[in-house]
Amino acid sequence: MSAEENGDTCGDPGTLRPGGRTARVRAAVLRTAGDALAEDGFARLDLADVARRADVGKSTVYRRWGTVAGLVADLLTDMAEQSLPRTETGSLLGDLRANAELVRGTLADPRQGALFKAVIAAATTDARTAESLHRFYEIRVAEWAPCVEQAVRRGELPEGTDAHEVIRAVSAPLYYRLLTSDAPLDRAAGIRAAEAAAAAARAGVYT
Amino acid sequence: MSAEENGDTCGDPGTLRPGGRTARVRAAVLRTAGDALAEDGFARLDLADVARRADVGKSTVYRRWGTVAGLVADLLTDMAEQSLPRTETGSLLGDLRANAELVRGTLADPRQGALFKAVIAAATTDARTAESLHRFYEIRVAEWAPCVEQAVRRGELPEGTDAHEVIRAVSAPLYYRLLTSDAPLDRAAGIRAAEAAAAAARAGVYT
Repeated sequence: MSAEENGDTCGDPGTLRPGGRTARVRAAVLRTAGDALAEDGFARLDLADVARRADVGKSTVYRRWGTVAGLVADLLTDMAEQSLPRTETGSLLGDLRANAELVRGTLADPRQGALFKAVIAAATTDARTAESLHRFYEIRVAEWAPCVEQAVRRGELPEGTDAHEVIRAVSAPLYYRLLTSDAPLDRAAGIRAAEAAAAAARAGVYT
Repeated sequence: MSAEENGDTCGDPGTLRPGGRTARVRAAVLRTAGDALAEDGFARLDLADVARRADVGKSTVYRRWGTVAGLVADLLTDMAEQSLPRTETGSLLGDLRANAELVRGTLADPRQGALFKAVIAAATTDARTAESLHRFYEIRVAEWAPCVEQAVRRGELPEGTDAHEVIRAVSAPLYYRLLTSDAPLDRAAGIRAAEAAAAAARAGVYT
């Protein structure tokens, strides 16, 4: 039985009850959309197909998400909300290694890696998806930036270090490897990404 | 008049005469393919349309390139061949800044930036394009790696530094910015990318 058949046909997107039926429908639809993106990419994503696979009424999906880009935007919002909070290890290198390992593990995961590739590819042609993707990274970078700010306060990094730019520097070589080579995203690549960002930050490159 | 109408119907791809009609046909087709990719992306690239726009016989294009992926592979081969040789400034930072400025200028150029975005996006779903793209970067990284090897010999960098990884580290933040943000690819971003790679290399991160 679909959620719509269950009577969930008049939900207002503004009245999400966590754990309620609306939230369960959203979770099912976003999980299905993520699976479909990872399997077939953005170009083949289809709202009716997602509704069928998620066992949710088609009209619910159209009313709530409207378009494929709208659905992907909500998926990215959900991914940002569900992402793990930053780790605090007490040292800059420890924190950056934790961040690198989180990014590396995500991109190396077959489903998640394919999902990110699909969304990055879609963002090159779809302006709304680009905006959603940029916002996703802003949220994630802002989540981890305080570990750089703490390192400045501890005297590990120069005053005036751009914390957001240091966090981006950790991700950059991992995404570059994912998108431009067939080299594996192994743990060594994550450690090197963290060490390179820390060394450049200590040298004052990001002030 | 198309090249085919000119009588160039029995050219063997193995007998390229530089400057000859075959070379002129290839140049016209690849330039048109690059324009089309930058304007409309990989999904809309069409051999017949490229032939028409390049004023080359359709059967010549089909015989020589066969598929869209085959055409893009040849475009990437040509781009690698046409790319500028590395600059030798006498210092590691000078060389890496020259490399960063070349990459940054390419990605910031409206046509070239859109072309790279289109090919990177296509590589996420098309295996042959991925292979061609990876090969393009291998060639470009190998072209610039000697500036790192020279820096090791001059004592600027530790013995055993992975020269290819240092060159990749220069490009990574520029591609990451292109694909995950709407921040401009300004000269400052290029300088910072070069300085970060140099600082990390000096600290021994790439040994």
